[in-house]
Order: sequence, then structure tokens, then C-alpha cells
Amino acid sequence: MSTRTASIGRKGILEIAEDLFTQRSYQAVSIRDIAQACGVTNAALYYHFPNKESLFHEVLNQHAARLSDEMRAAGKGMSNQKARLVAMLCEYVHLASEPRSALFSFRREAKDLHIGDMHVQRKQLMLSMLAPIEEVFDDAIAAGTLRSPGSKNSPAALLTGMLHALMMHRSACDFDTLREEDIKMTVDILWKGMEI
Amino acid sequence: MSTRTASIGRKGILEIAEDLFTQRSYQAVSIRDIAQACGVTNAALYYHFPNKESLFHEVLNQHAARLSDEMRAAGKGMSNQKARLVAMLCEYVHLASEPRSALFSFRREAKDLHIGDMHVQRKQLMLSMLAPIEEVFDDAIAAGTLRSPGSKNSPAALLTGMLHALMMHRSACDFDTLREEDIKMTVDILWKGMEI
Repeated sequence: MSTRTASIGRKGILEIAEDLFTQRSYQAVSIRDIAQACGVTNAALYYHFPNKESLFHEVLNQHAARLSDEMRAAGKGMSNQKARLVAMLCEYVHLASEPRSALFSFRREAKDLHIGDMHVQRKQLMLSMLAPIEEVFDDAIAAGTLRSPGSKNSPAALLTGMLHALMMHRSACDFDTLREEDIKMTVDILWKGMEI
Repeated sequence: MSTRTASIGRKGILEIAEDLFTQRSYQAVSIRDIAQACGVTNAALYYHFPNKESLFHEVLNQHAARLSDEMRAAGKGMSNQKARLVAMLCEYVHLASEPRSALFSFRREAKDLHIGDMHVQRKQLMLSMLAPIEEVFDDAIAAGTLRSPGSKNSPAALLTGMLHALMMHRSACDFDTLREEDIKMTVDILWKGMEI
């Protein structure tokens, strides 16, 4: 391993690879492109990642972890659980509605690529994105405020599913995009519907 | 127009075209393929439809109309509005989870194809599929049983969005698919959440 590789490191490679995948696409970017952008040899890249597929998986994982960190940060310091959900979901919708939202374009691509163990990958991604929302519901169910929708049904999936469908419906109807009041309304409906 | 074309007619052509598009894909089927399967000349086909794109649009419209008819039929004779929603959504989930569900594969394809006025087409499709569910909510809102989620927010989109997200989440977690009890639970939550 050259000193150059040591200086850029695994994290730096992932950041540069993410930029390239976002600007172009998974298929349009080669290991050589990434190595060149990092200023290292192909061999140096292979020292960290056995192939482009495993590098892509790592990029997706890192991106999902960042998204859930941002959602948790957005919800921090809110006075109650519903307000925390609204703040986290405003962040979620903001990230989801960006035209170049890397995570969402990656997920679409990953779905079409059928590379490697994508089923496991998609599961991890989805669960990582839903985790901050799930935690709020888990607390409220444990406290006896809300009833459980059944062990196999995720309240976070219900909530994000409502928002995704509203966004799609609004886009189809040429309405403007979701505002905070729509997110508040959606959280209110689900919360009231699950109250004991 | 030959007597052959007259005998098969517009409706017959659409049915045969739908079979072909479902078996293969939009791009893999030519006007010549459809004409041959119908036993007519290309010219006879162009008498009814200016091009393959307009034929595909008609197939999508007819398919969406059939789906909403089937949903309305499933809900007929139910003793109350919630039971009607559950029956219609069981039909919806059944149709959506069929691996070869024509409408859903068509919609996916239509999204990628970017042909013609697909935005208008997708809007019509979505609204046609949601219409039977929307009608039940409209009645309940007009009767003062439920509150409106706002003029730009569709209760039918909220409900189908919840179900789609549950299906995706279950598939990611290797859980079995949705049962009637899950659909009932989802309808219960949304209904209670919207009650005045």
C-alpha cells in the first residue's frame, strides 16, 4: 500500500466513489475511474475492496447511515414524540424529493442491477432509513400510548408509505409538493389511529 | 377496412395487444406482431390506432378501468364502509402482488419509457385505480363521519401507500405477504385516525 493510499484511506475512497456514482451511474463508473479520481492505483483500491460491487455496497451503507443520522439530528430536542416524528419526516421528505437525491437514485439503480446479494442490501438500507422513526413508535408502544400494528407490520413503513403515496399523487395531479402541515396531518392521522 | 378487421374490432385488437405486451414487453412487440396475432394487415391496425404508442395508452386505460371495476365489484354488498374498503383492498393487493400483474408491470415500463404524454397517462391510471376507494372516503367525509385530510391530500393514496410500504417492508424482511387481517388493521388505523 502506497503512502498515497494510506493518506486517502477507506473513508476518502468511499466519498469520492459516491460523488462519481451520483454524477454518473453505477454502470458508467469503473474501478479505474475511481482510482484515478482518488489519485491511487487500481491495485491500491483492490486492497480495500475486492470489487466494484462491494465498493458500491459500502457506499450505499454509508449513505443510509448518514441519512438516518440526519433524521435523528433533526428530531433531537423536540418536546414530544409527534413533534419528533414531524421534524424527522420533514428531513426525510426533503431528502427524498431532491431530484439528485443519491440514496434514492442508488436504490432505484440497485433494484434494476440485480447485482450480488442485493436483497440483503435493500433490506439493510430500508431498515436503516426507517430505524429513527421506528424507535419513536417502539417507545410509544412500550409506554402503552400506542397499540402495536402486529409484530410483522412496521409503523415506520406505514408512515413513510403514506408520505410517498401523497407525493406521487400530488405529482400526478400537478399539485405542489408536501409542506410541513401535510406531514403534520399525516403523523396526526397515524398517531390517532394507533392510540389505545 | 377488410371484413376481418371489422370482425375483430377495436376491443379485440386491444385484448390481443394486451396479451402480447404482458407476455413480452412494450419494446419487444411491434405493430406487425400485433397485426399478425389479430390476423389483419398493418394498415388495418393503423385504421384504429395512429401508432403503437396510442395503442399502448388504450391498453393501459382499458386495464385500469377493468381493475377499478373489479375493485368496485369486490366491495359491492358489504354491510358497511370499512368492510367495503377491506374487500376492495384485498382485491387490490391480490392484483398488485401477482408476479405478472399486467398493470403494475405496464406502469413500471411506462415510467421508464418516457413515451409521449406519459405524465397525463400516469395521472389517469393512478386516479382510475384510486377512484373506487376515494368514493368510499368521499361519502364518509360528506356524511361527517371522517374529516378531510385537506383538498390536495387523497385518503385513497394514504391507504394504498400504507399497504404498498407494508408489502415492501415484509418482502425486505422475508415475512409472508399481507393477509386480510393486515389489511383490516391498516383500514382500522386510517379510519380511526380520520374520525371526527
